Amino acid sequence: MDCEILTIGTELVLGYVVNTNAAVMGRTLAAAGIAVRRSTAVSDDVALVQDAVQAALDRTGVVIVSGGLGPTRDDVTRNAVAELLRRPLKRDDAIVEQLRERFRSRGVANMPESNLVQADVPEGATVLPNPLGTAPGLWLEDGERIVVLIPGVPKEMRGLLETEVVPRLKARRGGTGNGERGTVVRSRTLRTTGIGESALADRLGDYEKALGSTVTLAYLPSTAGTELRLTAWNVPESEVDGVLAHAVDAIRPRIEDRVYGEEDQDLAAVVLELLDQRQLKIAVAESCTGGLLGARLAAIPGASRLFKGGVIAYDNEVKLQMLGVSADALAEHGAVSEEVARQMAAGIARALDAGAAIAVTGVAGPDGGSDAKPVGTVWFGVKVGDTVRAFHLVLPGDRTDIQARAAQYALDFLRRMLAGTL
Amino acid sequence: MDCEILTIGTELVLGYVVNTNAAVMGRTLAAAGIAVRRSTAVSDDVALVQDAVQAALDRTGVVIVSGGLGPTRDDVTRNAVAELLRRPLKRDDAIVEQLRERFRSRGVANMPESNLVQADVPEGATVLPNPLGTAPGLWLEDGERIVVLIPGVPKEMRGLLETEVVPRLKARRGGTGNGERGTVVRSRTLRTTGIGESALADRLGDYEKALGSTVTLAYLPSTAGTELRLTAWNVPESEVDGVLAHAVDAIRPRIEDRVYGEEDQDLAAVVLELLDQRQLKIAVAESCTGGLLGARLAAIPGASRLFKGGVIAYDNEVKLQMLGVSADALAEHGAVSEEVARQMAAGIARALDAGAAIAVTGVAGPDGGSDAKPVGTVWFGVKVGDTVRAFHLVLPGDRTDIQARAAQYALDFLRRMLAGTL
Repeated sequence: MDCEILTIGTELVLGYVVNTNAAVMGRTLAAAGIAVRRSTAVSDDVALVQDAVQAALDRTGVVIVSGGLGPTRDDVTRNAVAELLRRPLKRDDAIVEQLRERFRSRGVANMPESNLVQADVPEGATVLPNPLGTAPGLWLEDGERIVVLIPGVPKEMRGLLETEVVPRLKARRGGTGNGERGTVVRSRTLRTTGIGESALADRLGDYEKALGSTVTLAYLPSTAGTELRLTAWNVPESEVDGVLAHAVDAIRPRIEDRVYGEEDQDLAAVVLELLDQRQLKIAVAESCTGGLLGARLAAIPGASRLFKGGVIAYDNEVKLQMLGVSADALAEHGAVSEEVARQMAAGIARALDAGAAIAVTGVAGPDGGSDAKPVGTVWFGVKVGDTVRAFHLVLPGDRTDIQARAAQYALDFLRRMLAGTL
Repeated sequence: MDCEILTIGTELVLGYVVNTNAAVMGRTLAAAGIAVRRSTAVSDDVALVQDAVQAALDRTGVVIVSGGLGPTRDDVTRNAVAELLRRPLKRDDAIVEQLRERFRSRGVANMPESNLVQADVPEGATVLPNPLGTAPGLWLEDGERIVVLIPGVPKEMRGLLETEVVPRLKARRGGTGNGERGTVVRSRTLRTTGIGESALADRLGDYEKALGSTVTLAYLPSTAGTELRLTAWNVPESEVDGVLAHAVDAIRPRIEDRVYGEEDQDLAAVVLELLDQRQLKIAVAESCTGGLLGARLAAIPGASRLFKGGVIAYDNEVKLQMLGVSADALAEHGAVSEEVARQMAAGIARALDAGAAIAVTGVAGPDGGSDAKPVGTVWFGVKVGDTVRAFHLVLPGDRTDIQARAAQYALDFLRRMLAGTL
């Protein structure tokens, strides 16, 4: 079964409110095996709402509409849809009573009359109870076509979607969701860093070509790296996990050195786990990242067991004084250099008696670049046990991008040294 | 001039990614007086993209399409639109050279061949340069109709929209946007921290009641504080700045002590400016924030002139050794205490010879709380010149919320001490 999502609200179209409702609806419906084909947002305008509902019905036959059911003048959805489907509105006494009771229970004796429109029900509609708010949901059928109206308040939307809308759509589709027709859309994500989108695509090219339409592969780049999302489309619920596992097994070996985790796993958490296995504590020495690398580690619950701390050596004086970097190295090679990165890593490991250490020194910009060391130039020093290694990159993006990428690369260099793949 | 927004991406429709791009596009276009009528998201599917572009052109005549211009197989927008408008694609040698240069400058001699599709230009299209990424924007006209393609990477989308797309749309609309019909929707934002949404509402209650429908006020809470957004609706472009200035002047005096800036201003930048005025350098000593406070300062361009660095004293050993916190204070009061916060601030200021210092020590959770010091308990030590003051809060939220709020409050305590309002 396919459906479309329609979210109503001038604030959404103007971008004053980010449309998280559309995301929640898409995710919830897809996971239940109802494929969302299109997601549309329109302003609080009768003609626009009617046009969008009609178009969705003509294309897909099922449309879930969220928003515009409240008591104020800009809430037009109920009237617009009733008129479009030629279903006169009738005030429902039971809903009126529920509304009055709701206000009474909150200590308001005289409910503002504007609330009564929320008790108006289009002829032939099924009322979907909404215990979390004032406007109930409405389920309308027109032959094979279905229009569902639910409120735009996120909590109410979610509640109605999960308890009323999804079960009805599944029932309508037939079967329990586990039968032949009970197909679902579900994803798995592999997280990579230290390799570009196009380099990944080159490694996976053959595999991608061989993919059918059952599983698709999406590349989602960010400053944390590139996520690879494998999505299984319209697969029976009983088979979907197997299909995804098969797909992951096919691509993971080709990029194994670059995959640090799956789903929402954070690279800092992966590094802490590897350190734990080796019984190593970690310290950091940060120049251009200014504390971001430490913050990445500290964000992980339980980090305090393994993360000792570090020095933010933003000023060169601090590098000399607290990290024991030599004045000669600074004078001869400059703060952004292999030698200084190595000395920073060794210095912080010694100062805090840590078995592992990461140092970062670079040019985050926008100023401070030169021909020899352009903005984005970063040197990393990574110490594990008695080994100190240095790595060099020129990172793209603006100042905050470069800082975010530098922290992520720093963690990944340590990860790969600990894993023995670097 | 009306237009529609079309965002391309299966992950958007499935809700795996929240569609912030659509919000940014809506806001930017509305602020320029270009009314967005509808915002649609469809999957990476040639037929769906073509159908959505065609429908938008039929309805509105102008459609801005974001996403699906990258180098991988799931990027279908360029081909889909070229085919729909019957404009054969031709590889543009100048773009190819820019692509190769971009990779060379990052030390990649052999650009992956998959990138070349980004140099394909539909016949008759104007290429919109994208200095922030690999895929340029494309501007296509078909009689009176306009289709604009821009990348989906948020920063690149924003850059192209502001520098290329909006100026061209304004020019196309004719006039300067100051005519009778040139009404716009525009906002101003006041940024506050250290005061809750309802406390703000109490201070602003009378004013809100007096607001008409021309200007609305929204409260937008986050871990950085509460933003107050004043929006002027459908006001002539020549009047909108005055209308908003009038509204800001009416509310700002009531909350002046809590407003640290306007629009996108970062509290860390405000603090650095105040330090600059006083000719003070700053150092930080961080326990529960783990480097986040330093990272906030380091994120501001030019921070190195005033930010010396600091110590991430995550482990108590580090507090003793590098900050000179006394073993007695730790034993008697614990690491999360007024005394230790004060000693940390004094210690880092002394060690790095800084005129101002901030120290943060707290319980970020999820473990480590007690009846006396529940999760969220944070002590701050703030030193300006010879004065050290300590502040205590219990912050709500999960671990990362608590860390983010603690860094923000720490900066605000220093701001208010520097401004003489605390």
